Amino acid sequence: MFPKNTWYVACSADELTDRPLGRKICNEPMVFYRAAGGVVAAVEDFCPHRGAPLSLGRVCDGQLVCGYHGLVMGCDGKTVSMPGQRVGGFPAIKSYPVEERYGFVWVWPGDAALADRALIPHLHWHDHPEWAYGGGLYHIKADYRLMVDNLMDLTHETYVHASSIGQKEIDEVPCKTTVNGQEVVTSRFMENIEAPPFWKAALRGNHLADDVPVDRWQICRFTPPSHIIIEVGVAHAGHGGVNAPDTHKVYALVTDFITPETDTSMWYFWGMARRFNPTDAALTAQIREGQGKIFSEDLEMLERQQANHSAFPDRRLLKLNIDSGGVQSRRVIERMLAAEQAASGRGAPANEEVSA
Amino acid sequence: MFPKNTWYVACSADELTDRPLGRKICNEPMVFYRAAGGVVAAVEDFCPHRGAPLSLGRVCDGQLVCGYHGLVMGCDGKTVSMPGQRVGGFPAIKSYPVEERYGFVWVWPGDAALADRALIPHLHWHDHPEWAYGGGLYHIKADYRLMVDNLMDLTHETYVHASSIGQKEIDEVPCKTTVNGQEVVTSRFMENIEAPPFWKAALRGNHLADDVPVDRWQICRFTPPSHIIIEVGVAHAGHGGVNAPDTHKVYALVTDFITPETDTSMWYFWGMARRFNPTDAALTAQIREGQGKIFSEDLEMLERQQANHSAFPDRRLLKLNIDSGGVQSRRVIERMLAAEQAASGRGAPANEEVSA
Amino acid sequence: MFPKNTWYVACSADELTDRPLGRKICNEPMVFYRAAGGVVAAVEDFCPHRGAPLSLGRVCDGQLVCGYHGLVMGCDGKTVSMPGQRVGGFPAIKSYPVEERYGFVWVWPGDAALADRALIPHLHWHDHPEWAYGGGLYHIKADYRLMVDNLMDLTHETYVHASSIGQKEIDEVPCKTTVNGQEVVTSRFMENIEAPPFWKAALRGNHLADDVPVDRWQICRFTPPSHIIIEVGVAHAGHGGVNAPDTHKVYALVTDFITPETDTSMWYFWGMARRFNPTDAALTAQIREGQGKIFSEDLEMLERQQANHSAFPDRRLLKLNIDSGGVQSRRVIERMLAAEQAASGRGAPANEEVSA
Repeated sequence: MFPKNTWYVACSADELTDRPLGRKICNEPMVFYRAAGGVVAAVEDFCPHRGAPLSLGRVCDGQLVCGYHGLVMGCDGKTVSMPGQRVGGFPAIKSYPVEERYGFVWVWPGDAALADRALIPHLHWHDHPEWAYGGGLYHIKADYRLMVDNLMDLTHETYVHASSIGQKEIDEVPCKTTVNGQEVVTSRFMENIEAPPFWKAALRGNHLADDVPVDRWQICRFTPPSHIIIEVGVAHAGHGGVNAPDTHKVYALVTDFITPETDTSMWYFWGMARRFNPTDAALTAQIREGQGKIFSEDLEMLERQQANHSAFPDRRLLKLNIDSGGVQSRRVIERMLAAEQAASGRGAPANEEVSA
Repeated sequence: MFPKNTWYVACSADELTDRPLGRKICNEPMVFYRAAGGVVAAVEDFCPHRGAPLSLGRVCDGQLVCGYHGLVMGCDGKTVSMPGQRVGGFPAIKSYPVEERYGFVWVWPGDAALADRALIPHLHWHDHPEWAYGGGLYHIKADYRLMVDNLMDLTHETYVHASSIGQKEIDEVPCKTTVNGQEVVTSRFMENIEAPPFWKAALRGNHLADDVPVDRWQICRFTPPSHIIIEVGVAHAGHGGVNAPDTHKVYALVTDFITPETDTSMWYFWGMARRFNPTDAALTAQIREGQGKIFSEDLEMLERQQANHSAFPDRRLLKLNIDSGGVQSRRVIERMLAAEQAASGRGAPANEEVSA
Repeated sequence: MFPKNTWYVACSADELTDRPLGRKICNEPMVFYRAAGGVVAAVEDFCPHRGAPLSLGRVCDGQLVCGYHGLVMGCDGKTVSMPGQRVGGFPAIKSYPVEERYGFVWVWPGDAALADRALIPHLHWHDHPEWAYGGGLYHIKADYRLMVDNLMDLTHETYVHASSIGQKEIDEVPCKTTVNGQEVVTSRFMENIEAPPFWKAALRGNHLADDVPVDRWQICRFTPPSHIIIEVGVAHAGHGGVNAPDTHKVYALVTDFITPETDTSMWYFWGMARRFNPTDAALTAQIREGQGKIFSEDLEMLERQQANHSAFPDRRLLKLNIDSGGVQSRRVIERMLAAEQAASGRGAPANEEVSA
C-alpha cells in the first residue's frame, strides 16, 4: 500500500562508499552504487546469470561486478560484459531512476518513464551556511504509515518522550490541521510555558537563558509520498514565538523521510536541521544523539502497534481531531495510489495525474 | 483447543507491580494491572484509539494510561478519558474477569457473564503456617496438553529426570488411574526403596535419615481446565507411607497450573508446597532451585515433541496404561469444549453445563 | 526435488559417538546411532509412543532408548520393549538402510527394498597410505542444487575466493563439459601460470618451489545424486600437468557430498584428500583450515542466491557454457526423479531403472 511512481530516500549519500549497497525498497530488492564519476546508479539486486545478489559484488572502475561469476552490469540494467561470454542476448534487469541530492540518494521505484527529477523536494537548508544538520536511519518493522501518523500527531510526545520533549501543554493546546492540495499541515502553538529538557539544552546551545518562559511551536508538514518536515523550536516568551528574531529563539526543522521496505517494515531517515549556532559541531553531535535517543523510543511502540494491527486486521481505529494530520496524509497517499492504479489500467499515464 | 469459560492462572501476584503486564492467554492479548486499591484488572492489550498495546503504558493513580497518546482505560474496557477528547462514543474493548487469590492472578478468558469466582480452586496450603511454598514460571512452545500428559504420567521421571527424582522403581510399579467426575487421579505407591537424590535432600531438610529404605508415593490429581496437583513424598519404610506420621516423612504437593498462550505454546506455573520444616527459608530456596532445574529438563522434550506433532499432524499416538491419566484428562477437556461449543450455539449456556 | 532412492552421506563416522544423532535428511527427521557391535542404525526420529524425538534419548547396550518414557526401539523400526508394556501391537516406524563406509555414514532415504549397498561410491583414497584426508560439515540454507552448480562451475573462484584459489586465468581458459551416462565431467587446464596462494602453500607443503610457473588443473566429476569429486592441483610447468610425476606436483581431490535437508537447505560435507606428504598431520590441519575458510565464503552467496530465487520463483536463469556442468548434472538428477516417480506410479520399480 505505497505509491511507487514517486521519489523516496533510498540511503544517505555517505552510506554509498566504494562498495555496492543492497536495500529492499517498496518490496523490490535494489542495489545502489557509485558508477563512473561517482554518479549514483541503482538496479535490481538480482544477477541475470544465476540470480545472485549483485550487492555481494564489487564496484570496479565505476562498474558493478557480480561477486559470483564476474558479470559486469550496466547502470541501465543491461549486462555490459562477462568473462568469456557474448552478452547481447542476456535479459535486462530493472534499473531505477536515482538522484543524489541534499545528502541523500533518491529513488523512483515505479515506472522509470514517469520519473521527473523536478519532483524531488527542495531541501533549502542543505549546505546552507546558516543551517547545520545531523541525522540517522532506523529500520522499523511497521507499516510506514504508522510513522506518518506518529509524526503528524505530536501529542504522543507527552507520553512516549516524557523526559525529553514531552510536556503536558502539548495535550492541553489543541492542534489545527489544514490541507493545501497535497500538503497537510498540523500546527500547535504553546505560549508562556516552561521549555522541556531537550529545548532547554538547545537554548543553552544557542547561548540563551533556559530558565525563562518560552513560546513553543510545532508545525508538521506532510508532503507525498511520506516526507514530513516539522518546524520546531522555542522562543523566549513575548518576542513573537516562531516569528521572534533569531536572537531570542532556537529554530529547527525535524526532517523525516519514510521509505517503505515491505508492507510491514520501513526505513526511517530522521534528522534535524537547525538555524542557530550552525558552526558548533559539538552541538550538532549532541542534538543528533539526543534526537536519536528520542526517536528510538518510538520503535517498540510502532512495532508492537503493527503486531496488534496484524493480529486484528479488521478492527476499526478511531480518527480523532488529534489524528487529523495522519488521517489527511493517508488520504493524500490513497489518492496517489488510486491515480497510479487508474493510470496503469489505462496504459501510460499523464505525468501530472500520477503525481496529483 | 482449550476451554475459555474457565479460570486460568494469568500470572503470579508478585509479577504485578506498579507497571502493566502484557500476556497473551488463550490467543488473546491481555494486559493486567493493579487498579485503585491494588485490585487486579485485565483488559485487552489493544488501545481503542490507534491499536497500541496498553501494556506499554503506565498505571497512574490506579488507572491504566496508554503510553502512546494518554487514553485512560477503565477496568471495564470503557475509555475513562483522553486529553482533549470526548470519549463517550469510543468503542469498548474486552475486559476480563480476574481475581487475585492464593498468590496468583486468575483470569476467565471466555464469556464474562459466566464467570463464577466460586469455581477458582481452593489452594488450602496458601499462607498456612504448616506449609511453605516456592515456585516459578516457564514459557514453553508446546500445546498445553503435552504438559498435562507429562504430569499425569510420571514414568518419564526415570528418563528425563534420572539424576534427581527418577528411579527404576517408577517404571516397575504400575500406576492406577481413576476418574471421579471431572477429577482424574493417577497414583503410584513404591515400597521399601532407596530414595532418589531429590528426596534424600528433602529428608535431610526435615532432619530425617536419608540412608534408610523409604516408601514413596505419587498421587497426581487433574482438575479442569489444566490444573494438576501431585501429592509427593517419601516416608521411612514401614510407617504407613503417605499416611505415616509427619515425624517420619517428607510430604509435599507439586503444584502445576498450565495456561495456554496459543495453540502451540503455554505458560507453565510450577511450584512445590511442602508440609515439613516450613519456616526454613533456605530450604524453600533450595527446593525451588532443584525443582526449577528438574522442570527445565522437560522443556526441550516437550518443544521437540510439539515440533514432531506439527510435522506429522495425522499420526496416531499410543494410549498405554501409563498414559491413562493424560488420556482421561484430555477427555475431561474435550467434554468441556464440546459443552462450550454446544452452549455457544444455543445462546447463553447453563453454568453447570459449561463446567461439567 | 531430490531423489530418495539413492545413497546420501548422513554424517561423518566420528559424529556418531555413544549418543544418538538427530538429523533431518530429504525432509525426513532421522536418528542415527551405533547399535550392537557399533553397527550404525537409523530410524525415524519419532517415538511411536507419544511422538517424542528419539534423538533426545540414549543408547544403552546398543539399543536406542527413548528419553521420555523408556521405549526401546529396534534397528528395524519395531519396538523391542517398554517398561511394563506388551509392545507387539505397537506401530512400526520407518527404518533406513545405512552403511558406515569410508569414514562416513551413508543413508538411503527412500524405499528400503531398493537399497543396494554396491551403489555406494568407492572412495579409493580412504585409509590409503599414500593419501591424507581432512574435511568438515556446513549447514547451508539453500537448495542443494545451488551447491552442485557452484562446484561444477569453478569460474566463481576468481570472484568468491579471490585471495586463495581464485585467479584471472580461470576466467580466461574455457572449460569443457562431457557427459558419460550418469557422470558429468567439467575440466579446465591452465598452463604456465602463477600458482594462487593456496597452491603455493601446498607446493611448500610438498617441499616444492612455489615461485615458478605451474600448470593447474580442475576436473570436476558429478555423480548422482549429488557427489562431486574434483581433481585439483598444480605441477611445475612443463612436466605434464596432471600427468606429471608426483615429484613435480601437488595432486588432490576436493570431495563434496551434498545432502538435502529440506527443499531449501542442505548438509554440505566438504573435504580434501591429497596425494602428497600424507603423513604430515600439521599439513592436513593447515589445508583443512584453509579449505574450511574458502568454503565458508560460498555460504552467504548461496543463501542470498536462494533468497532471491524464493522471492522470484518464476524467473528464468541463464545457462551459459560455464554453467554446462551444473546444467548437465541437474539433468541427471531430473532423470533420476522422473524414473523414481514413474516407478512409484507403477509399483515396485526395477532397481536399474531407479538408479539409471
